[in-house]
Amino acid sequence: MEYAEIGYRVEDGIATITLNRPEQLNAYTNRMRLETLDAFDRIDADDDVRVVVVTGAGRAFCAGADLSSGAGTFDYEQAPEMFGGEERLQDGTPRDGGGTVVLRTARCLKPVIGAINGPAVGVGVTMTLPMDVRIASDKARFGFVFARRGIVTEAASSWYLPRIVGISQAMEWAMTGRVFPAAEALAGGLVSRVVPHEELLPAAYELAREVVENTSAVAVASIRRLMYAGMSAETPWQAHANDSRLMTVLGAAADAGEGIESFLAKRPPAFPMKVSRDLPEAVPDFPRHRED
Amino acid sequence: MEYAEIGYRVEDGIATITLNRPEQLNAYTNRMRLETLDAFDRIDADDDVRVVVVTGAGRAFCAGADLSSGAGTFDYEQAPEMFGGEERLQDGTPRDGGGTVVLRTARCLKPVIGAINGPAVGVGVTMTLPMDVRIASDKARFGFVFARRGIVTEAASSWYLPRIVGISQAMEWAMTGRVFPAAEALAGGLVSRVVPHEELLPAAYELAREVVENTSAVAVASIRRLMYAGMSAETPWQAHANDSRLMTVLGAAADAGEGIESFLAKRPPAFPMKVSRDLPEAVPDFPRHRED
Amino acid sequence: MEYAEIGYRVEDGIATITLNRPEQLNAYTNRMRLETLDAFDRIDADDDVRVVVVTGAGRAFCAGADLSSGAGTFDYEQAPEMFGGEERLQDGTPRDGGGTVVLRTARCLKPVIGAINGPAVGVGVTMTLPMDVRIASDKARFGFVFARRGIVTEAASSWYLPRIVGISQAMEWAMTGRVFPAAEALAGGLVSRVVPHEELLPAAYELAREVVENTSAVAVASIRRLMYAGMSAETPWQAHANDSRLMTVLGAAADAGEGIESFLAKRPPAFPMKVSRDLPEAVPDFPRHRED
Repeated sequence: MEYAEIGYRVEDGIATITLNRPEQLNAYTNRMRLETLDAFDRIDADDDVRVVVVTGAGRAFCAGADLSSGAGTFDYEQAPEMFGGEERLQDGTPRDGGGTVVLRTARCLKPVIGAINGPAVGVGVTMTLPMDVRIASDKARFGFVFARRGIVTEAASSWYLPRIVGISQAMEWAMTGRVFPAAEALAGGLVSRVVPHEELLPAAYELAREVVENTSAVAVASIRRLMYAGMSAETPWQAHANDSRLMTVLGAAADAGEGIESFLAKRPPAFPMKVSRDLPEAVPDFPRHRED
Repeated sequence: MEYAEIGYRVEDGIATITLNRPEQLNAYTNRMRLETLDAFDRIDADDDVRVVVVTGAGRAFCAGADLSSGAGTFDYEQAPEMFGGEERLQDGTPRDGGGTVVLRTARCLKPVIGAINGPAVGVGVTMTLPMDVRIASDKARFGFVFARRGIVTEAASSWYLPRIVGISQAMEWAMTGRVFPAAEALAGGLVSRVVPHEELLPAAYELAREVVENTSAVAVASIRRLMYAGMSAETPWQAHANDSRLMTVLGAAADAGEGIESFLAKRPPAFPMKVSRDLPEAVPDFPRHRED
Repeated sequence: MEYAEIGYRVEDGIATITLNRPEQLNAYTNRMRLETLDAFDRIDADDDVRVVVVTGAGRAFCAGADLSSGAGTFDYEQAPEMFGGEERLQDGTPRDGGGTVVLRTARCLKPVIGAINGPAVGVGVTMTLPMDVRIASDKARFGFVFARRGIVTEAASSWYLPRIVGISQAMEWAMTGRVFPAAEALAGGLVSRVVPHEELLPAAYELAREVVENTSAVAVASIRRLMYAGMSAETPWQAHANDSRLMTVLGAAADAGEGIESFLAKRPPAFPMKVSRDLPEAVPDFPRHRED
């Protein structure tokens, strides 16, 4: 697939997805959605990618849905491309498009870092919630503006947002639809750090390199799925069962040997295992995630 | 229903419930419980109410259960009015009274702001947990004092408190039964803000007006239910299904058109839809909430 | 059972478990695991124990698994003692050993305070997650180093860690495997407080005494189970059912009478009830916790 509305490049183990409609403040489109879904498939299949960074071209991260077509923008009959096109729930309901990107990000086998370089509004912010870490430029702004447009907080944000920032902060932002600066995002726990604008990508890449240089790709993929399965698990007993299965397989595998030996020898590790080939079957997924 | 132990007034789209037994520090009674339940029914039915503010008359918010009747205060046989009166679980167990208020607050279709003006102790603090935002006066004090009285943290606080402040902070407050000042409540995440005493109601009303002036009532009602359903959902896939259903209905409805057109015209919105009439059937509820 | 690798003493209502292999930085062993499990059984059976403090002897809290046996350290065939020995899931999978300690800690009827006096790495930190409060010395260091060893975050940490520190912080620590100082643990919410090294145990004991001196042991045991059951509950309706059952029993019991009378008389309480004898049957457990 050729990409027209996102940029994609891989360097030093890090894939960068750049939302790339700078003249439109990277406003979300169905084409951008399909390209992003495709990019995540490439990322999962490519062992040269250890970490993903998502950012925006130009002065915005993503201004949300393009409202230039007016009152019918969110009406499926008029604008199926704002939904998931022909994609439907099992009961025939058109799928929320932003949600399809979020759920694909959720299942990615590589960690995802959001480098939020400017305004992130509507689906422009909800799409970042399944990313593992969000770092913001001091020029970033955020808005869960849905209630001001007569619609709801979408893209599965009702699952993510209260778990990330707490239900009180989630409701305050969602019920007011307020647009707020990076400092409020940091105080509320939406982003991990705010950095001077020009240090945003360096900070994201520095964090990514910490993963690339020190860790087993198969271990990180397993941990990412394990951790989100743990968030969905009712009790720690389910986490314990997942742990036991993964420790039994991975504890006896080559990366564990290399992890221990490199540590004892005080040398950088050279892990032999590959995600595309060696991911244990015991790696959990979100439970029952295909039910709808 | 005439109210004797709460005040109720509606102004500029904001309903204010005032716990009103100031001589008894607004100590909780069964009458206060029934009046509060009634007030929430009025609120949901009244399209002139967009937001709810709950506060206390006089120097306390709510001192908790009135212990003046002595050792039998929490004994159902002696004091059924401290429970839910005749209300029972399906297995015949008397219902915890504070819980009935909390569960009604949880399902309210309008956002609820707690304006905590003084001591909030026992059920006086647990009743605030299902409110969306808690703002405290610098004169507020808090205490989950149940373990000091030989009873348990009630009013469904074992669901809310660890989700609001984290399990460690929840356990520290619950296992010590400590009474603590507003600053500790803020540091622990129990309240969003602490303000000078005389600025408490102005701060609550300013936040309420941000909702009233900018947002669709139907969108906010839908979002409130969606967000709490999301907290209860096992996975983001369930949130995505809810989103898809709501976006399909609301995206094609009148408020979405007005939301977009008013935004493009840079004028205040005038949303035509009413909660009493236009709430989508797809609005989710807490799953299986009637099982007990 | 005689203890060789932990210390155990009870004083003034507080049991102290001391991880006690100081020459090996208290590195985790199967013997230490079995002794810790035994100590928790003693704690639950001993009404003289109201609170538990866990700390380490010497300069470490627990350096994690002992890697001195090299590449096969985590291979069950070579080192079953790093797992749960002969303990298996229902499907025959060897149990993750750290998880057995965590799940036992989770069900303890007394609150558990971690006093983290030095490095807590690998299972040395994950074992602390089911403790109610973690207080750190300024000499403590932490590391979820699993991905650097080619294995996964174990000991049910995928359930606890995102609920304690949020999923973003959990993933940042787990995907990098970084070792980090006490200040980062505090900023991230992993510990409640950092204190000067020599004030660590005094701070832990002061918190413990707040429980011992003021609260009903039966109420605290009930609350601990109730609160973790609440974290596992899908909705507040389940918490309400638990509350109603416990309030009906405990509200009519002797400790409630003493709690109210001592409060009204402004004297210290002398609660007559004992956990070993008087714990209500209605006290909830983690739901379905035995399924694996």
